[in-house]
Amino acid sequence: MEKELVLIAGKWRAADASSSFQSANPATRETLAAEYPVSSWADCDAALAGASLAFERMSQMPGDQIAKFLEAYADLIEANSDKLVETANQETGLPVSPRLADVELPRTTGQLRQAAEAARSGSWKQATIDTANGIRSCYGPLGPVCVFGPNNFPFAFNSLAGGDFAAAIAAGNPVIGKANTSHPGTTKVFAELAQQAADATGMPEGTVQLLYRTSHEDGAKLVSDPRVGATGYTGSRNAGLALKKAADTAGKPIYLELSSVNPVVILPGAISETGVEEMAGEFSGSCLMGTGQFCTNPGLVVLLKGAEGDALIEAIGRKFEEAPDGVLLSAAVEDSLGKSHEILKKAGAEVVFGTGDGTNSGFSRRNTLLKVSGAKFTENPEELQTEAFGNCSLIVVADDLAQAVEVISSLEGNLTGCVYSAKDGSDDEAYGRIEPALRRKVGRLLNDKMPTGVAVSSAMNHGGPFPATGHPGFTAVGIPASLIRFGALHCYDNVREERLPEILKDGYSGDAQRLVDGKWS
Amino acid sequence: MEKELVLIAGKWRAADASSSFQSANPATRETLAAEYPVSSWADCDAALAGASLAFERMSQMPGDQIAKFLEAYADLIEANSDKLVETANQETGLPVSPRLADVELPRTTGQLRQAAEAARSGSWKQATIDTANGIRSCYGPLGPVCVFGPNNFPFAFNSLAGGDFAAAIAAGNPVIGKANTSHPGTTKVFAELAQQAADATGMPEGTVQLLYRTSHEDGAKLVSDPRVGATGYTGSRNAGLALKKAADTAGKPIYLELSSVNPVVILPGAISETGVEEMAGEFSGSCLMGTGQFCTNPGLVVLLKGAEGDALIEAIGRKFEEAPDGVLLSAAVEDSLGKSHEILKKAGAEVVFGTGDGTNSGFSRRNTLLKVSGAKFTENPEELQTEAFGNCSLIVVADDLAQAVEVISSLEGNLTGCVYSAKDGSDDEAYGRIEPALRRKVGRLLNDKMPTGVAVSSAMNHGGPFPATGHPGFTAVGIPASLIRFGALHCYDNVREERLPEILKDGYSGDAQRLVDGKWS
Repeated sequence: MEKELVLIAGKWRAADASSSFQSANPATRETLAAEYPVSSWADCDAALAGASLAFERMSQMPGDQIAKFLEAYADLIEANSDKLVETANQETGLPVSPRLADVELPRTTGQLRQAAEAARSGSWKQATIDTANGIRSCYGPLGPVCVFGPNNFPFAFNSLAGGDFAAAIAAGNPVIGKANTSHPGTTKVFAELAQQAADATGMPEGTVQLLYRTSHEDGAKLVSDPRVGATGYTGSRNAGLALKKAADTAGKPIYLELSSVNPVVILPGAISETGVEEMAGEFSGSCLMGTGQFCTNPGLVVLLKGAEGDALIEAIGRKFEEAPDGVLLSAAVEDSLGKSHEILKKAGAEVVFGTGDGTNSGFSRRNTLLKVSGAKFTENPEELQTEAFGNCSLIVVADDLAQAVEVISSLEGNLTGCVYSAKDGSDDEAYGRIEPALRRKVGRLLNDKMPTGVAVSSAMNHGGPFPATGHPGFTAVGIPASLIRFGALHCYDNVREERLPEILKDGYSGDAQRLVDGKWS
Repeated sequence: MEKELVLIAGKWRAADASSSFQSANPATRETLAAEYPVSSWADCDAALAGASLAFERMSQMPGDQIAKFLEAYADLIEANSDKLVETANQETGLPVSPRLADVELPRTTGQLRQAAEAARSGSWKQATIDTANGIRSCYGPLGPVCVFGPNNFPFAFNSLAGGDFAAAIAAGNPVIGKANTSHPGTTKVFAELAQQAADATGMPEGTVQLLYRTSHEDGAKLVSDPRVGATGYTGSRNAGLALKKAADTAGKPIYLELSSVNPVVILPGAISETGVEEMAGEFSGSCLMGTGQFCTNPGLVVLLKGAEGDALIEAIGRKFEEAPDGVLLSAAVEDSLGKSHEILKKAGAEVVFGTGDGTNSGFSRRNTLLKVSGAKFTENPEELQTEAFGNCSLIVVADDLAQAVEVISSLEGNLTGCVYSAKDGSDDEAYGRIEPALRRKVGRLLNDKMPTGVAVSSAMNHGGPFPATGHPGFTAVGIPASLIRFGALHCYDNVREERLPEILKDGYSGDAQRLVDGKWS
């Protein structure tokens, strides 16, 4: 069978392939027909050359042209939504509706259009002008960006359509997308539409390029190549750490989203006030939604020892038993989730409900609820905070508040952390002690709300301390902040007026806010 | 002889020392009397514990209290300027006046007061509010910051008084300062004054701590410790890369300023228009100022082959010969500069003037001007862009514009890059081809101006692509931007109003600009 083509420098061509791979339909476990190439370094090198040429033109381009490309692309995605949804459903097992067609696809085109707006207005550039010293600065494009998208959002975090893609392009950089192995076909459709939009809007060849897969060695070489500006990676921790090491050594920025257990602290007063059944329902809904395959899935719950906590554990266990076992994204996820169950059990977690094979005919594991004492957790926090990506959560029962704080302090960095506390003030003292410890560990702190929804908002932080992400100062979701990751701070000192970027000129008439001589205008 | 004491958790105490060191007076080559300890890990561990306790309190502190501390400290520095200037002059050989007393000291107190203002107003926090989604975010403190200051600015970049210190404290983080080995006595005076200011303004013990030196191994352990928030390092490339490796592996942010040759392109029209003597004078002044020991020293000049370039080289060589050889900061700088001369010569650079021992009785080398052809440079760009820290510069003579662009494209990242071009338009085409290549390589781009002055301006970027610094998006000079390096993005989702940081509350009445529902207010 013919292998699928890669997209390099504006042309679809046969890969220089060392081998090939196929994806599977997770709902049926059946291997899908199409065969995708594993590219050799020659393909990476050609893509880097193409991206470098594209960058030369894109870095000089008005934001308006980049915006038109992103908008044309969003339009094409909508016009081809049936094909995208069908392909993604086949490759991921995620429901057509509402998930793919009504939630994730509109989110994706919405992000692209917001990014277009940021590119057009330059609102992300943080233009700063000091007329007395003749010094002006703003963010500018950084260079070609490599994007490695995750398995769990075939649209909204897709290497060639998702948040990193939109941010990198809007900041003026071409993108080399590495398709996620579980949905190469979906990524191919995106690449076709993106190339069509690029052609229609006069973007240079190499603005958008697609490789399906490389060896680990070539991946590391790619992210550390001198021609690369930066990399965005969302995926498994081990693969991400290997790329991070290579990029760090070369001094190349890499933005990573690696793993997160998203601790949820539920204080006793909140359980009493809300009621055990409602609280258990809220938690189970968040934990099992999408078979638990969200970056912000609540994988760790901290309770205080007592009747309220015991009742809640019992109720959650019951709901986990009642809920159907969902489809997991791939055989690899199924395998990895099983391994995480074993690691957690071996480290001392007891099974409240679950572990073992799922009841779904696709890739699946039983909904699984584990528990462990706070004392045991703090003895072995490394293993007991192993991310179990999927429909699984671990409840930690702390003896008292001091131990709960100790549990939180022993956590690695996370994307989110939540505290549920009573509205009547009975949990306020506990909140006051828990919040400072939790604040330092997470990017987004929630009250009385589960973490699974990630609004596309300028105030969102979808980020957090390592290893949740690679740097605690940046967010992957939320425009314009997410663009800054793919920008370099460009300062102009005594540079002649006509040579300055438009946004730094005295006569600038656009909409972007600028800090001029200490005042915003 | 008794070793000097270290400052840990608010107390001066004997170090747990493995050995000791002394500094020297660079102007006389004499070893100074005081003996400073090389701390063992026990001291690092105690400092980390002290910093963690201090962070718990500082992270909850109103910005106004931090501002008062910084201002009290600036006042004490001014009140003790004679002692600071005298000590620094002994340890660095830098002139008392104007350099130390009239330029660097006021710059240092000015930075501290600007940082105080940023801490008080919260202007650095980028508060962003989305009322519809109930999501709010701003930058908050990151955790204890380690600062490793350089040898060349005993005040303005001092580990316990300089730009990184001011930025880290103003962002709400305690600082563990590692003194530069060449001026431990100056750093000790700063630590005494800082502790006095901390006591007077109710700051927690451990806000400011001082270690003089550690083993390389313990330094690496320090910057990667879980209790650390981030590290600021300015200094030699090798030591910095070792720290970077350790911090990167632990996922800890590290901001580095490592090396920079600061290319200056002088186009033929500019030479004719300005005149050979004036241009040579401007360049020599910038290159030899402070014996060339500035991060932004112009260490690489690119000229186009021709009569103008030849005349300029001859004139610069003459000025290098006429100028006295200045004092170098230490025996290590003297040694390293000699080694750089040899590396450059071995790689093909010809001596126009200099190399060899300096004529100064202190640590010194001859003012040195080297030259090499563009063809030779692009054959071996790695060695030929070796930083020769001190009174030395390499001129690259390109055959034509295309080769000049090739030379620039073969450079690593730099802090600055300059282009001198004629005002009559005769160099404009050349500028248009050089600028895009240079823009990507540097943090600050200059026209018709040497790079050695670094204004403390909100529009300044004292940063640049690796290895000039560790990340092209951040600046070490310029408030408020420099504070962001030591902040984490803190998002609050559905968090109750009374629990929010002041700057995110609905009733906020301060001066900081906030982005509320897409509008600046």
